[in-house]
This record gives sequence, structure tokens and C-alpha cells, in this order.
Amino acid sequence: MIKCDIGFARKFIEDDAYFKARKKADNALDQLRDKTGPGSEWLGWRDILADPNDAELEQIGSLGEEIRAKADVFIVCGIGGSYLGAKAVIDALSPHFGSNGPEILFAGHHIGGKYLEEMLTYLKEPKEDGSAKNIYLNVISKSGSTLETALAFRILRELLEKMYGEDSSEHIICTTSKERGLLNKVIDEKGYRKFIIPEDVGGRYSVLTPVGLLPIAVAGIDIRTLFYGAVSAYNQYEDNAEDLLEYAALRNAIHESGKTIDVFATFEPELTSLGGWIQQLLGESEGKEGKGIFPTVATFSTDLHSLGQFIQQGQRSLMETFIIVEKPFSKLRVNEIEGDGDNLNYLAGRSFHEINTKAREGTTEAHSEGDVPIVRISMETLNAENIGKLIYFFELLTGIFVYSLGVNPFNQPGVEDYKKAMYRLLGK
Amino acid sequence: MIKCDIGFARKFIEDDAYFKARKKADNALDQLRDKTGPGSEWLGWRDILADPNDAELEQIGSLGEEIRAKADVFIVCGIGGSYLGAKAVIDALSPHFGSNGPEILFAGHHIGGKYLEEMLTYLKEPKEDGSAKNIYLNVISKSGSTLETALAFRILRELLEKMYGEDSSEHIICTTSKERGLLNKVIDEKGYRKFIIPEDVGGRYSVLTPVGLLPIAVAGIDIRTLFYGAVSAYNQYEDNAEDLLEYAALRNAIHESGKTIDVFATFEPELTSLGGWIQQLLGESEGKEGKGIFPTVATFSTDLHSLGQFIQQGQRSLMETFIIVEKPFSKLRVNEIEGDGDNLNYLAGRSFHEINTKAREGTTEAHSEGDVPIVRISMETLNAENIGKLIYFFELLTGIFVYSLGVNPFNQPGVEDYKKAMYRLLGK
Repeated sequence: MIKCDIGFARKFIEDDAYFKARKKADNALDQLRDKTGPGSEWLGWRDILADPNDAELEQIGSLGEEIRAKADVFIVCGIGGSYLGAKAVIDALSPHFGSNGPEILFAGHHIGGKYLEEMLTYLKEPKEDGSAKNIYLNVISKSGSTLETALAFRILRELLEKMYGEDSSEHIICTTSKERGLLNKVIDEKGYRKFIIPEDVGGRYSVLTPVGLLPIAVAGIDIRTLFYGAVSAYNQYEDNAEDLLEYAALRNAIHESGKTIDVFATFEPELTSLGGWIQQLLGESEGKEGKGIFPTVATFSTDLHSLGQFIQQGQRSLMETFIIVEKPFSKLRVNEIEGDGDNLNYLAGRSFHEINTKAREGTTEAHSEGDVPIVRISMETLNAENIGKLIYFFELLTGIFVYSLGVNPFNQPGVEDYKKAMYRLLGK
Repeated sequence: MIKCDIGFARKFIEDDAYFKARKKADNALDQLRDKTGPGSEWLGWRDILADPNDAELEQIGSLGEEIRAKADVFIVCGIGGSYLGAKAVIDALSPHFGSNGPEILFAGHHIGGKYLEEMLTYLKEPKEDGSAKNIYLNVISKSGSTLETALAFRILRELLEKMYGEDSSEHIICTTSKERGLLNKVIDEKGYRKFIIPEDVGGRYSVLTPVGLLPIAVAGIDIRTLFYGAVSAYNQYEDNAEDLLEYAALRNAIHESGKTIDVFATFEPELTSLGGWIQQLLGESEGKEGKGIFPTVATFSTDLHSLGQFIQQGQRSLMETFIIVEKPFSKLRVNEIEGDGDNLNYLAGRSFHEINTKAREGTTEAHSEGDVPIVRISMETLNAENIGKLIYFFELLTGIFVYSLGVNPFNQPGVEDYKKAMYRLLGK
């Protein structure tokens, strides 16, 4: 179960303001459930959990295993919602050093020429034993026309065709729209394997579709456990969403009070990328019509030594949301040393987890005294099931909170503006 | 030369407000030069450029070469200003894939047990040829008592002592205070090599001292060129700091106008970590007494697909600062393909740099029309000299801007608050 504690934030909000916001949250949840709000044609991220497609999970899982067995390198080619979810889950559940499977690289998420050029060189270099790297590529784009992703795919596809000739079609997997979009043309022509992005699921809500699940499976993570974690959260909140209604109401009241920044902070370096996923999910959903609390990401205690000063004493426009893991997932303890030259023997025998927990509690206390409202979201242990639950927790929170602002959580009209200007400048 | 263009921001500020802020900036620069402002005992970051220590540069450079020749892994053990500068420069100027020297790892920048435990396992694993990894460790801490760094150093030192016995002292280099601090005790005892952090240079201003320079040298970057880039910027701005005064005045006026967030954005993925360095430099300097514009970091066009919607149409409390590289540093061009299945043949023959530039221009136009003030900081090419110039540009800008707010740019009293609470909870 995901715990949500608004205790360190609630005291900053008057009862009247809170209960008014709570009413909005209740209405927002009704809108979601009844499919009566704006953008309600985009609620497929709920439907896939209400009615799991076990056959597809099985199919993705076995392709993941096939690729794990064969590939040295697996490239995820996508931008925004097409890679942030996979990256979040993979970073949360994979080793920091070394690897237990294919190296997973990301491409198609910017137009940096140096990055792609150096990636090409790297892919062409043989392994230490002199043999060529075995490379698989997953291109992820509903429309197939997103510039960043299409450009990288064009370049990488050419490399794979040079390396593998006709067999290159074995090395390329497309995740795209069922029928529409530019990728379907090339899939028909080349015979690439294909997974479908449901039409009613937007990019930032797509991590539990093949968009996220195939890369996650290639990383060796049990996607069935992940997915069914989300399913259990779905069922729980269909029954009782009190936690989420409180959180959404609180965040709405803080928004009304004029706070402009929400720092999503974790004390586990594994969860930094999850912060990036939440940043897109919330930011792209709420940031419309002049509204929203800007979501930003921090990793503590690292960033207490960069942003900590500002959070403690700078301009008072911040709130924080801590993403917490309660139980240790490492046994590392502090060793005792002779002479105690660094004065740390008082910690000897204690685990890093315990010390990190005290750092978190100290930070909660200090920032709270510095008038920063803090929401605490916690899971018991860091595993695929709980990450699945957390994913649905934040998807549902986003839907409720953004509806409660009176905004459509499922479109992104502003993203088109830079594209239009760019395409005009490119002479398209 | 670093170019600074406030044209896309100036129009949002009334003349009266701007000229009032400009006066404050002029006074702030006088305070810096005359050493009459609060915290003026911390201006060593200017003095080291006024009077370069060539002998020390030489010494650091040759140790860097020695380590490059011997080490497989080089660990930078430090937090905040003790690693962010080195990471910024190394990421800006190193290849994305593969390596041209020792692998550079970071430790001591958080209390994550899983990270450190997995690092230990990785360090102990032999190389592909079966031989042991040759590991060097640079611990960086003025006081030697910063918890995150001291804990990791205790653990890593034990590993090196097990691996190398008495020779471990050859593998450990300390960067610390001249005389005070806990590391000096262990240096005397063990005979570690030592570099000195000048007493009058604070952590976030220390990248051009041994703090940053040794790791940067180990990464194979010419530290003399980097350093003398900064020296030339120092001389230039001692002569004429008009650009910086304009920028500081503009940012002050935007601060007064109630904007709360400054998105430092680059279109070059190489420069993402430089954003992290700026975030600490500015954020920890300005975020006091309820003041400051919260600095946050984005990489475009990547984050146009996550934060772009909010920046374009969300709550209007943002400004942006673009860090720009004008000339291409990659020759990668778009290839032509038969059939034009992805409709990109209209770009065939054009460089990624050119397309990325159009993305930047389109973004500038779109965000500007969305009422976001944009400051553009640009360098001609991405190299060590220009990064050195950019470092001093932002150090000086920080000093001027923060003095113009009426705040001491050189202390960080708020960082102590979480530490105090944490140490109490740990029973120290």
C-alpha cells in the first residue's frame, strides 16, 4: 500500500480553504469515474487496469526474455512519455553499477548531434572479445512523426541495415498506433515486430502499456508484478480514494494560496528518474490556462547541498513532496575504525538506511520549521509491485488534482507552439 | 567571449524598474571590487584569477596525467560544491559513450546504501582480462566532517586498504583545508597526497581550485586552458562588466516583478550538468531572507516534451535562461532515404546542429509569445577555454546579482538546519 501523509502540510491551510478544495476534489473524482470531464476520451490508462490484457503481458514478457538472451545493447528511441516511464522504473529497480543484462541506451529524445554521432561510433565498436555488438532497437512513437525520435530512428535504422542487411527487421521493434501514423507504413514494408499504443492513452500515462513495458521487461524486471501492483492500487482506489482526495485537496489549496513550486524529493538515488516521470505527468497535465504548481525534482541529501539553502530560507513559494522507501534494501553498515579520525565511530554498526532515515526526518523537521509544506508519499519496500502501485497513485492523483483546478489533464496544446515555429523555420 | 543577450526579457520590464535595478547592480559590483559587502572575506575565487598559481596548475596537471596512465577507476568523493563543478566540466567536454581514460565515479554525495554497496561490489570485480581494477580515490572536503562524504570515505578507504595494504596511501588524494579539519589528521598519519582548498573560497565557487581541477585533469581536459579561459574573462570584466550589470539588473527587476522560477535550459545534452552547477551557485547564494528566483534545470528539446507545456501555458511565474553553443561540434547530418517513409527527406543533408538551432529559435519565439522572459547566454564553440569563461561569468553574475538583492552571496546558514536536526536524531 502507498501511504500518503499530508500532516506536515495541512497546518499551513485554513479549514475553510481546505474543505472548499476537498469538495472540488470529490467532484473531480466523480468526473473521472463517470467520464464526464474534459478529455474523457483519454481515460484508457484506467481501463487497461480494470481489464488487464494478460496475453499481451505474456507476449511482451517473452519478447523481453528473447532480447535479454540475445542483445548486448537495447536502444529505446522515444521522447517525453515514450521513454520517461521506462527510465523511471528501470532506474528504480536496476543495479547502479555493472549490469545484469543488455546495456540499455536512450536515443531520439533530443537533437544533440554529438550524442548520436558518438553513439553510432560506440555501437560499431566491437566487444572486448572482438565480436560485433548485437543491437536491438525499440522505436516508440504514436504518430511516427515526432521530429527528435524520427530523426534518430532514421539514422539508427540505417546503421542496423548496414550491419544486418535483411535481418535488420529482426532487430527493430516498433511501438506505435494501431493503424494511423507514419511508422505503420514502414512496418508493413519491412516486417518489423509491432506493439500497439492504445488510442485512448496519452504519452505521459502510457508507462503500463507496451511503451514502457517492453523496455522494462528487457531490463529484467517482472512486468506482470509491476502491472498487477498497479491493478491492485486501481481496485483499492475504486473502493476508497480518501488518501488521494486529501492529497489533491491539499495541493489545490496550496495552489490557491499562491505557492508556485513543488519540489519532488527522494532520499533514494534510485528514485531520481521517477521524479522525472512525475514531473512530466503532473507538469504537462496541470500547466495550462495560467495555472499549476511547477513540479521540480531533487535527490536528497545530495541536493540539500545545492538547493537546501533556498528551500530553507529563500523566497517562500515552495512546497515539497517526499517519495519515501520505509524498509532498507541494502545491508551496508558503518564500519568501526581505529583512532576514529573522522569522529564517526558513534555510528559504527548502524546501517546507511537508518542514517539516511534520520537525515530525512531531520530535513522534514527543518524544512517544516522553515514554513515549507511537506507531503510524504511512502512505500514499504522498493520492488516492482510497489512501483506499479506508485505509478497508478500518481496517475490518479494527477487526474483528480487537475480536474479540481478546472483544467483538462489529458491534452497538451502548448507543446505544439514551439513545434509550429520550428517547422516554419525549417521550411517544412 | 561569452555573449549575454537580455533582449527577449527586457521588454517585460518597465524602464523605471530596470534603471533602479541597474543602479543596484552598479553598487553591487563596486562592493565586490572594493571588498566592502557582507561576506567579503570569501572573495578568493577572484583573487586566484588575478594572480594565477601556475606551479599548482602544473602539479595538478601532472598528477592528473599520472592517474590517467595508471587508473582504471577514479572516484570523486564529495558533495555539493565538492563535485558539481568537476561533473559540469567533465560532462561538457567528454564523450557520451565509451571513455578516453579512467572511468570517473562519484561517491560521498548522498547516504544511499544500495549505491555504495553496489559500487563496492563493482570495484572488487576483476576486469575482463581477469586482473584487478586499479582504483584511485580523491576525497574532497574542507572540514573532513561532512557526513555524506566522511561516511563514504570511511567505507572506500577500508576497501583500498584491503586491496593495496600500505600502498593504499598512493591511491588516495585528499583535497582539503590547509591546516584545519579532520582530514589533515589522517593525511599526517597515512601520508596521503594533499591539495589545499583556499580558506577564502567557498564550496560553490571552488571549481577552479584543486577541488574541481584534479578530477577535470584526470578526465583528460586541459586545465590550464580552462583556467586561463576564466582568467581572460576576469580581465575582461575588470575592464568592462556592462553585460553582467545588464543581466544582473534585469534579473533583479524580474525578481521584483514577482517571478519565482528561472529555468536554466540548454539545447546541448552535454551541458545538463553545467545547469546543476549553476543551480547550486545561484540558488545557494540568493536563496536567503525570503528572497531569490528558484533556479531549476532543463535540457531541451528533451524537456519541451515534459515541461514545455507548463512553460508555454502554465502559471506565469517563470523566466528562462538559455545556455547556447553557436557553432557545431558534430558533423552529423540527416541522410536521405528511399521512399521517404518518415517524411524527413526535406531535411536531408542538413546538420543536426542546424536543426537543433531552429528548434531553439522556434522555442525562443514560442515561449516569448507565451510571456516568458528569456535571457540568452552563448559561447561560440564548446571547448575548455569557453567553459572557463562561462564559469567566471556565472560566478561574477552571482556576486553582483545577489549583492544587488541586499543579500550575502557567500554564506549558507540555512544548510545547517537539517544537519542540526539530523545530528540530534542520530544522538551525536
